[in-house]
This record gives sequence, structure tokens and C-alpha cells, in this order.
Amino acid sequence: MALASALRLMGVLGGMGPAATIDFLAKVLRVTPASIDQEHVPMIVHDVPQIFDRVAPIFAGTDEPLAAMQQGVLRLEGAGVEAIAIACVTAHHWYDRLAATVNVPILHIADASVVKLQTERAPRRLGLLATRGTCKSGFFSQRLADQGYDLIVPDEDIQLHLDQSIAAIKRADLVLAAEAAEAAGAAFAKTGIERFLIACTELPIAFAPTRYNALAVDSTLALAEACVAFSRSSSRS
Amino acid sequence: MALASALRLMGVLGGMGPAATIDFLAKVLRVTPASIDQEHVPMIVHDVPQIFDRVAPIFAGTDEPLAAMQQGVLRLEGAGVEAIAIACVTAHHWYDRLAATVNVPILHIADASVVKLQTERAPRRLGLLATRGTCKSGFFSQRLADQGYDLIVPDEDIQLHLDQSIAAIKRADLVLAAEAAEAAGAAFAKTGIERFLIACTELPIAFAPTRYNALAVDSTLALAEACVAFSRSSSRS
Repeated sequence: MALASALRLMGVLGGMGPAATIDFLAKVLRVTPASIDQEHVPMIVHDVPQIFDRVAPIFAGTDEPLAAMQQGVLRLEGAGVEAIAIACVTAHHWYDRLAATVNVPILHIADASVVKLQTERAPRRLGLLATRGTCKSGFFSQRLADQGYDLIVPDEDIQLHLDQSIAAIKRADLVLAAEAAEAAGAAFAKTGIERFLIACTELPIAFAPTRYNALAVDSTLALAEACVAFSRSSSRS
Repeated sequence: MALASALRLMGVLGGMGPAATIDFLAKVLRVTPASIDQEHVPMIVHDVPQIFDRVAPIFAGTDEPLAAMQQGVLRLEGAGVEAIAIACVTAHHWYDRLAATVNVPILHIADASVVKLQTERAPRRLGLLATRGTCKSGFFSQRLADQGYDLIVPDEDIQLHLDQSIAAIKRADLVLAAEAAEAAGAAFAKTGIERFLIACTELPIAFAPTRYNALAVDSTLALAEACVAFSRSSSRS
């Protein structure tokens, strides 16, 4: 059994929320070609949910969650990871300042999503399924616009269903989460949207049992693929 | 929103294998009373599967996996955890030396299982569903014997089914894993065993879709409950 691993140690800034972190880890597992333990991606997971809510500070223009996230990426760097994935889309509002906090690269979930959209030859116009904070911040739409993708932001009615769905996942109410996701998908489809981009790490869990899942590109899965690709890439040195 | 958390930071020595680690994290989530992110257990997860196989060294009387596991618990202690759970039963063969490596307590999955057996008023005689290494080592049976439980070790025929089931989980073949688990359960039941103790963190995944799941006490779930209870307990200081 070869133990000298060619795989690079990855860090995961998780806990936002814990169910989303588990979904991300499960997707890393799913997209890793492995037949024994030792072929799987080595990871240190910072699954610490005691971080201030991300959405309200984006609207207030404040940075309450930043210090705890910086502590998280510093702990991961201290543990020896070679790159970090953030298993929360909204947290990427602070991407630049988190990236400046550590010397290791932080993968960006929007960039990973662009790779996936290109691979899947997705249409250029997609409905954005995200938190209110991600929509308000605009970083995700901007990164995708730079690559020629037009993300349609949900109207208030659709966003209320998404808010409800995300909150339900965080309290483990999967039935209500799916019902609210279904309602959001239906209302979005009525506006003429045919394909979706799920840009929130809780929403893939909510959409999984709905009819809209097959019409959606999942940014969590995209980040998982980027994480596995980085781990399997050869060392920088 | 109260951010000053009363929850203690837990460490998880995982990666043995990665699917078992995810199953453990999902069970921690399931048994945590929480309605928002911040009420969930904070954890650092050492999900590094590049550890030498545990079973063969137990038969050879050698310690190949120990150094990597020691590095893991030291990394977790360095990251500030207050206690550690090991999400692999067989790895507990080296429990005493791992516990001596760090200054924080390491929960023992057999002790957690005893608590669960007592809570569930389980019968005193149970079929042991475990790796060949756990059966050979004897630590699990001994800890339970000390508390009055008689674990019946699988015969060679049953153990071959279990070996096959565990290996299938590690390569994500859930169908074969469940078929082999079903065969092991059926063969064990023929010997007169009515209830089981799943003392391997891969086997709950394999047994979940089988008829024997309802007859089994799950040591992963027991460890998850012990982890949540420790995190919610007041600090030692």
C-alpha cells in the first residue's frame, strides 16, 4: 500500500451552516475517483458555526462575521493546508480580505461555478438562487458577468421563498425547505427562466428532492470539483 | 444574536474512511437540538485518509497507522479543541497511546456505546458487527464485558460478508455494501442472534437500507451523542 500521498491537504472553512458543510464533503467524496481510503482527498474542516450571520452585515455595510472567518482560515493555514475552500457562498462577500489574511490560495466558488457552466455548456442566462446577501453584494453576478453569464436576480416574492428554505435547512426541517424551494422554482419559472444557478450551499439540499434540481447547476458541486482538482494537482514547488 | 458560545470546540479524528466521517458528522447534526447555525457543535475535523490500514497491523502486532493518527490528534489539539472523538472503531486499538499523546480527553466509542445500550435497555447478548481487526484486538468486547454485555464475535462466514461490505463502502459501492450487510445479518440471525451492535463506523451506512438496521445499536450514533453531550457540558475550568 503506497502511503506517500500525491494529494495536497485541503482546508474547508465550513459551519455556515453545518448541513451545508456535510453536503460539500459528500460531494467531494462523490467526485473523487477512489477505491480505498488512501486515495481520498485529505482535508482539515473548520466546522465552527459560531460565526455572526452573513446577510444582515452585507445590508448594513458592516463586517461582524469577518474576524471569526479570519480566525478560521488562519487555523487552517496553521494546520498545514495548501489551499482553502469556503463552503458558504455569502461568506465570499469578504473573499478579498480572507484571501489577504493567509498565504495559501482560497478557491472562489464563483470561479468554480464558471468552470462547471462552461463544461456543461449551460445557457448564458440563468436564474440566481442565492441568499438575499449574495444578491445584494453582487460579487457572484459580477464574476459571472465577466465571463459572459447573465444571472437574473430573484424578485421579492421568490426571495422570500428562498429565505424560508435556507432557514428551514438550518433547523433541519427538510420538508418545509423542499416545499419553499419548489415554490421559488415555480415562481421563477413563471417569469420565463428555464435554468438556474444554485449559488448558496444550503439550497442544493433543499432543491435536491424538487423537479427544479435537474434544471440547476450546483455551485457546491462545482466547488467540490475544484477542491478535488486542486488536491490532485502537482505541488507549486 | 448571542455569539458568546457555551459550546466547547470538539476535534474529530476522521478519514478512516471519509464516508464514515461524513456519517458521523451527519449524526452529530441529527442529535443536536439547534434551530440556527450558531447552536450547532463547533468542530475541527481531521479528515485525512492517508493513514495505513488498521486491520493488518493488529494481526501482525505492529503499529504502522499510529504515527499518522498521533499527528492527527496533535494537530487537533494545536487547533484548540477541548476533546477528541475518533470516527473509526478499529483505530481505538491504539486508544491508550493516542490518549497519552495529547492533554485533552479522547472520548472512547465503546464507552459511548455502553451509555447507549443502557439508555435503550438493550439485551445483554448482542452480535458484534465489526472489522476483523476490532474482533481480533478484543478491546471493544472487553470494555463491554466489563459492563455486563456479552458480544458474540462473527464466525468466518459472517466476517467475510462484513469485510466485503466495509470495502464496498470505501469505494462508494452502496448496493454491494448493503447486499453484503444483509447476508451478514441473515447468517448471524440463523445462529440465534436477535440484536446487534454495529462497532464499525462504515457498517451503519451499509446496514441502513437493510432489515437488520432496526435490530442494531449504532456505535457511530452513540459517539455522536457523546460528542454533543461533551460540547454542551460546562467547561472544566
